[in-house]
Amino acid sequence: MTISKESNVLRDLYQDWTNRMTANPDLSIENLRSMFDEWGQPALEPENVRYKSDHVGGVEAIWALPDGADSSRAIIYTHGGGFAVGSADSHRKMAGHLAKALKVQAVILHYRRAPEHPFPAQIEDAVSAYKALLDQGYKADNLITAGDSAGGNLAIASVLKFRDLGLPLPGAVIAYSPWLDMALRGATLESNASTDALVGKPILEGMAGMFLGDKTDPLDPLANPLENDFDGFPPLYITAGGAETLLSDSETLHAKAKERGVKTVLSVVPGMQHVFPALSGRAPEANEELDRIADWYQNL
Amino acid sequence: MTISKESNVLRDLYQDWTNRMTANPDLSIENLRSMFDEWGQPALEPENVRYKSDHVGGVEAIWALPDGADSSRAIIYTHGGGFAVGSADSHRKMAGHLAKALKVQAVILHYRRAPEHPFPAQIEDAVSAYKALLDQGYKADNLITAGDSAGGNLAIASVLKFRDLGLPLPGAVIAYSPWLDMALRGATLESNASTDALVGKPILEGMAGMFLGDKTDPLDPLANPLENDFDGFPPLYITAGGAETLLSDSETLHAKAKERGVKTVLSVVPGMQHVFPALSGRAPEANEELDRIADWYQNL
Repeated sequence: MTISKESNVLRDLYQDWTNRMTANPDLSIENLRSMFDEWGQPALEPENVRYKSDHVGGVEAIWALPDGADSSRAIIYTHGGGFAVGSADSHRKMAGHLAKALKVQAVILHYRRAPEHPFPAQIEDAVSAYKALLDQGYKADNLITAGDSAGGNLAIASVLKFRDLGLPLPGAVIAYSPWLDMALRGATLESNASTDALVGKPILEGMAGMFLGDKTDPLDPLANPLENDFDGFPPLYITAGGAETLLSDSETLHAKAKERGVKTVLSVVPGMQHVFPALSGRAPEANEELDRIADWYQNL
Repeated sequence: MTISKESNVLRDLYQDWTNRMTANPDLSIENLRSMFDEWGQPALEPENVRYKSDHVGGVEAIWALPDGADSSRAIIYTHGGGFAVGSADSHRKMAGHLAKALKVQAVILHYRRAPEHPFPAQIEDAVSAYKALLDQGYKADNLITAGDSAGGNLAIASVLKFRDLGLPLPGAVIAYSPWLDMALRGATLESNASTDALVGKPILEGMAGMFLGDKTDPLDPLANPLENDFDGFPPLYITAGGAETLLSDSETLHAKAKERGVKTVLSVVPGMQHVFPALSGRAPEANEELDRIADWYQNL
């Protein structure tokens, strides 16, 4: 597998995190959060993007405002980190690159995190932000939910929740390496265990525990979007890395969405790690993926 | 002492770091670096500023490019963190606010850090970036060195080095809570020990040890700018918090510079913590200080 030299930056970062967690299995949640905020390091600054700190529907957030973005369109971006770590800050550049590629604005949510705030606090925050944007006059069709890993779950689960609530649905959904199955049944959890530098069953079990708490079943259809039908779901673009343990979640999502007639694309880039668009601006694999997503969005 | 509610965010962050270091005295340098990168959290995003990842004189850096900034002028910003932690990322917003206030560009250096790179690697990187900007056509008089804490030391020590090298000197120097005396002789180290939520002798001793290594004397005049004369030094603006242990370093610097005829201003804001401009955009004390610095710079 030939991957770009630049993309090693993400694998090396993940390996460093793995080593640090192995060396210190009792790292506090505060220390884990600061460590995972290094997720922002691999991406380069997207040029010609301005930012604004804000609250949207009561949720702390950062707007990414690319030059020339269509101000009637916005991404609601939910960051990854197992619902417990990661932040709007760690994903500012990644979301900024996506917004720039799509020529729209993005609002990156600093949603409430587990374990202090278990399920469904995260989905409630996403719903609150979505409603606020509708109230501000955005048309649902001009909104996009997007996210990575656990935030990819939220980008999908929140749309299922909008559907339950009878809200109009967004025009598109984008998920980078979504983590969907809280019951951890994916085949690639085993088959890619040796190539994924970060994500394995122990870390997922820990994060699922914090997210679900004592009350929520791992097969709850909002905590686990794979336990849903996708009738009427918006056009869906799924990105995953060929080397990652969570690849099965993307494959299963794509198959389930397709079987219900959703316009869905699954793009698996060989050799790439979990959430490889964290390399946006740095590695050709991420930049080419952004080009493909932009083409897809322009042609919806 | 009445301080704004917003400024408590910085004190609380420092107290949290102190608690975490106390609970885990063996935190690795990697974990300390990720913790100190939370320094970026208190500042809000400065609006109408674009960013660009770059290398300047071989040094990794982020440009902060405010709308309407004078493109013939630039700040070389060196971040704080005891020469060992902190980063261009953690100080992006803080430097962006300063650049915006001064209506100039800023280049935030991700200089080499101790202990892997002890003194004088940091000063060499600052010299390298400065020479590169001169080579790019910037006039020395249109450049500003600025930094906070250990980076405030670098903003001053690098100018002393430029003087040694016979380079033309920058038009202005700005230091937020500079840490200058590697021999730790300041009276406020004791007298403000109960009000400073982060900085005390043990942490400074640890960081001085990493910076100086085995070879450099704590009274080396480039490692310890207080061991210098300030003949011919550019106009100097020094900001410090009234509650901080390093206040004496600012006071001594101001007195030494003044005695050699330097146009120097010392602004001590009562009740404020170390590097309180980390609250830029959030707390009135930081915003008012930025206004004062802007007035000073416009009237040089």
